[in-house]
Amino acid sequence: MNMKTILVIGAGRSSSSLIDYLLKQSEVHEWKIIVGDASIEAARSKINLHKNGTPIAFDIQQNESHAIIGEADLVISLLPPPFHPIVAVQCLKYSKHLLTASYVSDEMKAFDKEAREKHLIFLNECGLDPGIDHMSAMQVIDKIRSNGGTLLSFHSFTGGLIAADTDPENPWRYKFTWNPRNVVMAGQGTAKFLHEGKFKYIPYQQLFKRTTQVRVEGGDYEGYANRDSLKYIETYGLQGIKSMLRGTLRNKGFCAAWNVLVQLGCCDDTYEMDAVEAMSHADFLNSFLPENNSNIKQKLKEIPGLINSNEIDFLDWSGFFDDTPVGLNRGTPAQILEHILNKKWKLNESDKDQIVMWHRFVYEHEKKTKEIQSSLVATGSDSVYTAMAKTVGLPLAIAAKLILLGKIKSRGVVIPIDKEIYNPVLEELKTVGIVFHETES
Amino acid sequence: MNMKTILVIGAGRSSSSLIDYLLKQSEVHEWKIIVGDASIEAARSKINLHKNGTPIAFDIQQNESHAIIGEADLVISLLPPPFHPIVAVQCLKYSKHLLTASYVSDEMKAFDKEAREKHLIFLNECGLDPGIDHMSAMQVIDKIRSNGGTLLSFHSFTGGLIAADTDPENPWRYKFTWNPRNVVMAGQGTAKFLHEGKFKYIPYQQLFKRTTQVRVEGGDYEGYANRDSLKYIETYGLQGIKSMLRGTLRNKGFCAAWNVLVQLGCCDDTYEMDAVEAMSHADFLNSFLPENNSNIKQKLKEIPGLINSNEIDFLDWSGFFDDTPVGLNRGTPAQILEHILNKKWKLNESDKDQIVMWHRFVYEHEKKTKEIQSSLVATGSDSVYTAMAKTVGLPLAIAAKLILLGKIKSRGVVIPIDKEIYNPVLEELKTVGIVFHETES
Repeated sequence: MNMKTILVIGAGRSSSSLIDYLLKQSEVHEWKIIVGDASIEAARSKINLHKNGTPIAFDIQQNESHAIIGEADLVISLLPPPFHPIVAVQCLKYSKHLLTASYVSDEMKAFDKEAREKHLIFLNECGLDPGIDHMSAMQVIDKIRSNGGTLLSFHSFTGGLIAADTDPENPWRYKFTWNPRNVVMAGQGTAKFLHEGKFKYIPYQQLFKRTTQVRVEGGDYEGYANRDSLKYIETYGLQGIKSMLRGTLRNKGFCAAWNVLVQLGCCDDTYEMDAVEAMSHADFLNSFLPENNSNIKQKLKEIPGLINSNEIDFLDWSGFFDDTPVGLNRGTPAQILEHILNKKWKLNESDKDQIVMWHRFVYEHEKKTKEIQSSLVATGSDSVYTAMAKTVGLPLAIAAKLILLGKIKSRGVVIPIDKEIYNPVLEELKTVGIVFHETES
Repeated sequence: MNMKTILVIGAGRSSSSLIDYLLKQSEVHEWKIIVGDASIEAARSKINLHKNGTPIAFDIQQNESHAIIGEADLVISLLPPPFHPIVAVQCLKYSKHLLTASYVSDEMKAFDKEAREKHLIFLNECGLDPGIDHMSAMQVIDKIRSNGGTLLSFHSFTGGLIAADTDPENPWRYKFTWNPRNVVMAGQGTAKFLHEGKFKYIPYQQLFKRTTQVRVEGGDYEGYANRDSLKYIETYGLQGIKSMLRGTLRNKGFCAAWNVLVQLGCCDDTYEMDAVEAMSHADFLNSFLPENNSNIKQKLKEIPGLINSNEIDFLDWSGFFDDTPVGLNRGTPAQILEHILNKKWKLNESDKDQIVMWHRFVYEHEKKTKEIQSSLVATGSDSVYTAMAKTVGLPLAIAAKLILLGKIKSRGVVIPIDKEIYNPVLEELKTVGIVFHETES
């Protein structure tokens, strides 16, 4: 008997569904699942006494931790992206496959040759976004091409939101289901995309104003452009495409309200504010407002073009006009903002999140212009088995199974844009309710 | 006889009045004036065959150039700020005084102890802004204090503009009289100031909208806040002051029109644009505008809050709606913007620039609140003897004279905030028409 071992590094927010799936599969395939985390308690709680699971204390920055990689057949790293190369070096040393849900960094790319030589697959970008977005898009793109069509335009938006029955009074329809710091810093820099053959640029100060309205399965959303929509033109083989835009989805009203914070400079992470220890929520907002004697809401309304609808209500719900102390001794605007937002945006135990993904493909087929829309709505079960944890973790878990069963032949540093990966992964995702709906016109 | 030698390094834009003054003084005091520049032709043209002047080729990045510092008694560096420390090291080596018009960097500050030990003065921030602003402000501040007053608030604005009879059709009332790149990048980051005891922050995206109206000697101007208004609280000895704001002056309308470029992202220097070689002025602007079929002017008007007055006319005058090719093969938005602006904002030979400086001091004296306003308007003679060259160069030149004549006793790394420097410099500046007007109320 050849009992296989999977090592999962990281037992945080996005690991619950992944570990559950692997433990269930371990009963069928006689696998051993080792879960390593800096907190062995976190690892233990995810394994929940399953007979095939072993929790261990694992600290990527301690060399003694690395030897365990030698005992695995396949490693899934859920660590923050900067740590993946350290794991990759050990995987090369011990000849182990590696899976991540993170973007391929230049450092990761450099391992391609050695991984191929050792017949290893280093599969990255195999979560939700990046991950399911690649797989679901490439499945449609490959179908259009194999039917002789030519893609003219590709738009794709993904958002991690909250379900309709969660926090019904929360006007943002949003809570932190992912790294809160990344949410606060989102969009800084300039978004770049392609529109009808022209390069287009949206700076941060316009980003949350220039949104795209999107209707997905009966729901109305708005999307803002991601930083670089162009880099997947080559990856997806879309050279010559006229329009290409990837973005982030939010519920209606979110972007206009978030734009208020952006315009005021509340998301700035480049300097520390003064007198933070004595600062209230209202003081925080007021320090970015003109120095006249109007009250804060009035000042916001007096800034031309800033308040156009119910943005004040959003800020009010988040407590920005309260005299509550911030509760930090120091911090950049971004750090203080995150701290204030987290008081209302932290996921409660019974909260359900919701993932919404939407693609639109416009293509030419036999001299006619046609369109396919493809969409996914996935809802979490609670604050542990979130839609985010399912959609990030299950593609990794399914890919891990396929690799151990010898069903994936690709080797080297890859992302899931090839049929042999995306077809079986998307097929199995359907069985757990992660299903794309397609409409053609 | 003890014939003194002054070495001026840099014969660029701001050197004309400085070198002229020194050559004239050389006739009285029997000085030798060496002018070094990477282009010996530039040095020669500034000396204009004066018998006491010697042009030399000088390259700060070539060690062979440094020996000439040993032949001087005093060095004036007009090099870009990053080069001053290289000059300073040589001045310490050869025991020579050093003058610059640049902000004291941490590197420069570190030379203080050694300069004192060698009885040298390294006088920095002795141009216009920084320079005349320090001197004129400290003269008033010291007067208020010596009369028993307490300063409550200090506002100070300076602008390098153009004279009324220059380019009468130019709606910006502005041309490049200083480093164009710094003009394009101005205000990036967050402006920080103090208002009635509260710290206030203005991010870049609000900076050109939150202007202060200023009336100076019959002219109406608007000012935007400088990056850090707080750092001079300690330098000027203003601990406990309630309001402190330093800023940049522009003619009315400038900021609203510049704000359009800021909002669109045209001043971004963090990425290179695509397809620059085929880009027209209009293409440049359009690449930042929404992807609908309106014409460019219409698109600008459709962005909420962007166009409120005659901003379109300003952009039109600068050629932003023209099909003229940009004329660059590559570039960041900021580089392309500078290139387009320079086509109309380059100073012509007969153009006259104008410096406007304005201070307002509010203070308490014998339980009454009083106010002093102090202002300077200086006009250039032509595109060589600009007001900028006079106001940057003459304070340096006068200070150099005072040092060589033994009238300044300060040693170490200093800025001109001490009576022994500002009184004689301001007094002599009056004789060349650089005069502050004071009003009290």
